[in-house]
Amino acid sequence: MSWIDDPEFRPDRPFGPQTLPYGVVTVDGADVVAVRVGDHALPLPPLAGSLDERVADLVTAGSLDPLLAAGRAAWSELRAGLVDLVTAASAPRGARLVPLADTTAKLPFTVADYVDFYSSRNHAENVGRMFRPDGDPLMPNWTHLPVGYHGRAGTVVVSGTDVVRPSGQSRLKGSDNPVFGPSRRLDIEAEVGFVCGGPVRSRVPVSDVAEHVFGVALVNDWSARDIQAWEYQPLGPFLGKSFLTSIGAWITPLDALAVARVPVAAPEHPLLDYLVDPEPWGLDLRLEVSWNGSVVARPPFAEMSWTCAQQLAHMTVNGATVRSGDLFASGTVSGPQKHQRGCFLELTWGGREPVRLADGSERTFLEDGDTVVITATAPGEDGSVVGLSEVAGTVRPAEEG
Amino acid sequence: MSWIDDPEFRPDRPFGPQTLPYGVVTVDGADVVAVRVGDHALPLPPLAGSLDERVADLVTAGSLDPLLAAGRAAWSELRAGLVDLVTAASAPRGARLVPLADTTAKLPFTVADYVDFYSSRNHAENVGRMFRPDGDPLMPNWTHLPVGYHGRAGTVVVSGTDVVRPSGQSRLKGSDNPVFGPSRRLDIEAEVGFVCGGPVRSRVPVSDVAEHVFGVALVNDWSARDIQAWEYQPLGPFLGKSFLTSIGAWITPLDALAVARVPVAAPEHPLLDYLVDPEPWGLDLRLEVSWNGSVVARPPFAEMSWTCAQQLAHMTVNGATVRSGDLFASGTVSGPQKHQRGCFLELTWGGREPVRLADGSERTFLEDGDTVVITATAPGEDGSVVGLSEVAGTVRPAEEG
Repeated sequence: MSWIDDPEFRPDRPFGPQTLPYGVVTVDGADVVAVRVGDHALPLPPLAGSLDERVADLVTAGSLDPLLAAGRAAWSELRAGLVDLVTAASAPRGARLVPLADTTAKLPFTVADYVDFYSSRNHAENVGRMFRPDGDPLMPNWTHLPVGYHGRAGTVVVSGTDVVRPSGQSRLKGSDNPVFGPSRRLDIEAEVGFVCGGPVRSRVPVSDVAEHVFGVALVNDWSARDIQAWEYQPLGPFLGKSFLTSIGAWITPLDALAVARVPVAAPEHPLLDYLVDPEPWGLDLRLEVSWNGSVVARPPFAEMSWTCAQQLAHMTVNGATVRSGDLFASGTVSGPQKHQRGCFLELTWGGREPVRLADGSERTFLEDGDTVVITATAPGEDGSVVGLSEVAGTVRPAEEG
Repeated sequence: MSWIDDPEFRPDRPFGPQTLPYGVVTVDGADVVAVRVGDHALPLPPLAGSLDERVADLVTAGSLDPLLAAGRAAWSELRAGLVDLVTAASAPRGARLVPLADTTAKLPFTVADYVDFYSSRNHAENVGRMFRPDGDPLMPNWTHLPVGYHGRAGTVVVSGTDVVRPSGQSRLKGSDNPVFGPSRRLDIEAEVGFVCGGPVRSRVPVSDVAEHVFGVALVNDWSARDIQAWEYQPLGPFLGKSFLTSIGAWITPLDALAVARVPVAAPEHPLLDYLVDPEPWGLDLRLEVSWNGSVVARPPFAEMSWTCAQQLAHMTVNGATVRSGDLFASGTVSGPQKHQRGCFLELTWGGREPVRLADGSERTFLEDGDTVVITATAPGEDGSVVGLSEVAGTVRPAEEG
């Protein structure tokens, strides 16, 4: 029986002792590293004295940066120490539980490079059908490599940050010339992000992914489809994506997802060697997308075609380095069924099939004032449930002028 | 008559007192901020006492980061102070000149986000013809907005860093399936980069570019054309570019290029308001590309269609912020004539028209051991010449395996 008195801190709840995600919260005016226990934050700096000296210094900063840089051995050591502390019968000296409602979550680490993949075949095919109605929905490269591109690291923000509707150029149907104004097709992308740490390294083999991936967080890659459609050829998405990308406030350690590993469907043809994983594993993360409180989609991450190990191997096979603070995301998670689609472009088929919310209203794309919350759970050890912390955002009107 | 005894430190030489670019060099084992005077580095920390107290603290770090963050007023103040110091008759207390040959140049600032534009119409049309022979060379968006995309900040390196030939997937002509191996079409892109500083801000009007652009440096955006051609659809270039981007070691302040401003050709149709600059200016930078010592191209930056002010306005018009350390580059600089093309893909027309070097050898793409050096000069005040420091790199063989 743990000293932590929180009904949400139980193995059958997403943020029990089996999860222990890391974040940074402002408490009494200071930013501190903490773990989430149920609906509380447990700040770690006061507990440094109760931790092994090899890791105690990693939790006293105002961000996760030192912990990310420390690498896999330190991550495992710290997690083991924290499990002991939170499951002990009596509180460690200095322990203080702060209700989440009394804290402000901060972006928990400095985002170095942000890469966004495109690893759901359902999503890629659906978008291809809509953006390129005259061509093949899937480009010939898609089944041979995890397609991806770089996004804007400087506009990755923590869950809860408002989403100001972006303005930009788009081209109205039937017109040759673009117009400027607030996006009329503001969308979400429900994704899973991988937070990197450990040493700087290139050419990371698929077998070494756990040396470089610290943990997992939900990502909402807000997208302005009208801006994107006009700008994206030939160099890819730019302003249609760069205005904001939200990430969950709490990073669930990869170690917490050991039981959630699932096999991945065999590719339709042999892969090139550097992408071959003898035992490729995905993660059985079950996402849930709520639009103004109505659940509109349940995208299954287990359906993804490319694994995080393959993504990391691909991203670095050309000699590019991965470094601590790098974030790479899966791309929109979409399952084969309609209610499993992870963006509104797909869910409403380009706006032609509106979604009805619980209040009776209909939606195609996001309206000002709308709130989207994405959550996820995964199976944990002994029937427990492991949670990914929510990524939430509310749309605010475009800026004037 | 200045106390600096260096024949290269004269107004008719590129690194005379009219230029004073900033960099970071390792001297006696420590990284220090310095300005380049002729063929010497002048470390600034020992001179802090001779500078105005408002800027003295900005030059004592081991990187340009504090100076970049300080903003336009500090940049002008520091430059004025340095001009006084380097043109004085007697050396300021603590001044020490270090021959460049005795220093090691470091990447002078922490690259935040790296964006690469595509603002030479000649380049865009030439590449379009080669990559999409069946379509229009220019996409319809090109004349309405400065097309760009995000690159990898973590692999931006300082001039002089070796270029290990990247490996990756490419598809051989006539084959449906890709192969893996060292790039066979390793190329350069001669570009001009803009280094940002000052406050975090979105929606920067074209009139405010000088509040956010600290200075200018040459960029070589090394490109593996075979990898790029296979991967780039639909999300843009990724591994074909991300292995390495080189930047000159010395950042020439925007203030040094006041005289180099030139008018820009009127667009072929009216632009949307946020891109309209009452007096748009480009920069009369004359680039020179040397391949193993032979000058193979002289790309004219004055020919670019989109200005840095328009690029910055576009990059932030959607609400995305610019922050200190951001780097954006022009895209390959190519003039209308063949000898003005800034990449080998264009210069050799996809490898079909080899270039002959001074030693009699022929080249299409880069071979192991090749060295490329890009330099540039611009007109300065009173007939002086302002230099952009070289960006150089030598190709090393691909890593095994």
